[in-house]
Amino acid sequence: MTEFELIARYFTRPNRSALLGNGDDCAIVAPSAGNAFAVTTDTLIEGRHFLPTLDPFKLGRRVVNVNFSDLAAMGAAPRYALLSLTLPQIDEDWVSRFSDGLWSVLDAYDVELIGGNTTKGPLAIAMTAFGELPPNQALTRSGARAGDELWVSGTLGDAGWALYALTGETKFAATPEQIAKYECPEARVSLGLALRGIATSCIDISDGLLSEAKHIATASNVSIDIDIATIPTGLQHVSRQSISSVTETATLNSIENRAWSAVADHLGQHCLLFTGDAYELLFTAPRQQHDAVAAILKRENLPGACIGRVSPPNAAQPVRVLDAQLRVMDIEVKGWDHFA
Amino acid sequence: MTEFELIARYFTRPNRSALLGNGDDCAIVAPSAGNAFAVTTDTLIEGRHFLPTLDPFKLGRRVVNVNFSDLAAMGAAPRYALLSLTLPQIDEDWVSRFSDGLWSVLDAYDVELIGGNTTKGPLAIAMTAFGELPPNQALTRSGARAGDELWVSGTLGDAGWALYALTGETKFAATPEQIAKYECPEARVSLGLALRGIATSCIDISDGLLSEAKHIATASNVSIDIDIATIPTGLQHVSRQSISSVTETATLNSIENRAWSAVADHLGQHCLLFTGDAYELLFTAPRQQHDAVAAILKRENLPGACIGRVSPPNAAQPVRVLDAQLRVMDIEVKGWDHFA
Repeated sequence: MTEFELIARYFTRPNRSALLGNGDDCAIVAPSAGNAFAVTTDTLIEGRHFLPTLDPFKLGRRVVNVNFSDLAAMGAAPRYALLSLTLPQIDEDWVSRFSDGLWSVLDAYDVELIGGNTTKGPLAIAMTAFGELPPNQALTRSGARAGDELWVSGTLGDAGWALYALTGETKFAATPEQIAKYECPEARVSLGLALRGIATSCIDISDGLLSEAKHIATASNVSIDIDIATIPTGLQHVSRQSISSVTETATLNSIENRAWSAVADHLGQHCLLFTGDAYELLFTAPRQQHDAVAAILKRENLPGACIGRVSPPNAAQPVRVLDAQLRVMDIEVKGWDHFA
Repeated sequence: MTEFELIARYFTRPNRSALLGNGDDCAIVAPSAGNAFAVTTDTLIEGRHFLPTLDPFKLGRRVVNVNFSDLAAMGAAPRYALLSLTLPQIDEDWVSRFSDGLWSVLDAYDVELIGGNTTKGPLAIAMTAFGELPPNQALTRSGARAGDELWVSGTLGDAGWALYALTGETKFAATPEQIAKYECPEARVSLGLALRGIATSCIDISDGLLSEAKHIATASNVSIDIDIATIPTGLQHVSRQSISSVTETATLNSIENRAWSAVADHLGQHCLLFTGDAYELLFTAPRQQHDAVAAILKRENLPGACIGRVSPPNAAQPVRVLDAQLRVMDIEVKGWDHFA
């Protein structure tokens, strides 16, 4: 099977709404009247963004969902995608299952694959996604205002816990639900659309909760307080108490000398606050929209909760976490750094 | 230096014309009234699309030019770019020189970098480029008509010859001009814009001349005859005669037993017809536009020539090459396959 046959068989569909679809030097697209394009690009590298053991069907779904999660966070409706696929070799069974997973999500959103390329090299997948939205309704990171409430969709911590279990970095097991949450994230596209005109700011939680909250705080020039006791999670063990040594980089070695349940609680807290891959939406909305947001989450059939509030800027601590006794916890937020 | 600092220092500029620039979950862009976006994505992998010895400044320029070459081939004006950068580690000197090269081209076209990501892994660079154009003026691959002339800009063969020399696959030396042609391709953006309304089809020569001609022939449902004697080249040695064993995959071993000059001529012919990396435009135009096209090439200060003509479809031989005696040469065209 040649590269051309591979593209034709697994990544080509008849053009629908693009002015010019796949197969020329460029595709040609335009947003519908009054709309603009929201565009984002994400690269997934084997061993870094997904485990080598990940089923290719799930990987195909993951690539699209990870990119659409950024569209969801803007309140944009997915329209088009470009795919850059780097493969060590052509394994037709692998490609077939990967493309099945990819199309299962693209088709669900009626999104067209309008171009891309394939090349040989260490497995990596880059996607560029185009969403559409009225530009003045975009959910940016910069619109949070003092007095707003902070909300999160879904549950946090599960994906991070599963990753630790799958890589063997802890002895704790993960449930099938937690593993599914890690392996098969679902972009909250429908939620993002529903939050247009209601949320004042929004971001997707691809890294950890606290680093994403810090992005909103910085972009909006506000500070954010999070009540750890209110964060929804599928984890059974999560300390809601202040634990002095919780840091962003998991110091598992330092805590595994303690009692088993305390270790689990400690790791749970770490997963809740710091680990990524949740792909939930973190957003702010005025207090008077509280019931409207709750109704939207219910309609979307999503867990989620109001987990904090927005205050005037606090340069020293743009994001604070309060424990179950509402004491400020001693936590440093750095944000995920691929090169750290 | 953290990933965030790296992005802030080397890849972030104030937003100019995007509705929302770099720094949120997505950028938001819209084409100006009456226009659409031409979009393309290309990935460059070390050792495959560029040699590990390539200067990072030149690599930065190359990444942009390779993508803009696809915009040029559509007749689109570059507007925005997204960058996915995969680095084995943060080498600030390397990143600084790479970004200088990148910006030197982006700035020359007044193009904004509106987003992207960095991650750790084997060196690879993916760019998505956005051009703008009135959609009905796009230069596609599918508009060639029987009777049209076939044109090429610039010179062919030089880049391929340089690559063979740089990798040591032949003992022939390459001139500094040939090496520059390989290492520092220049997207023919201005030419592409000038060809709007004149060219009937257009493609950029990223692979070889013959495989690109075949793309036009297939997409336009025509056949194409190329006169090898008329192809402009900077090579000193190029046979314009029929050589029975010229094939797409260079059979250098089989020819290096021959006389030195014959070998050079043979390799030159191979480079002229089959090797890629030229990033020139191959296009068709009606005969009555002959003088107009010649005038455009002159105004662009580019070599280039009419190298053939378009005929009704010929399924058996969609692309034929005629030697200096106008005899059909025995050549098989497959097109570059990364996995072959």
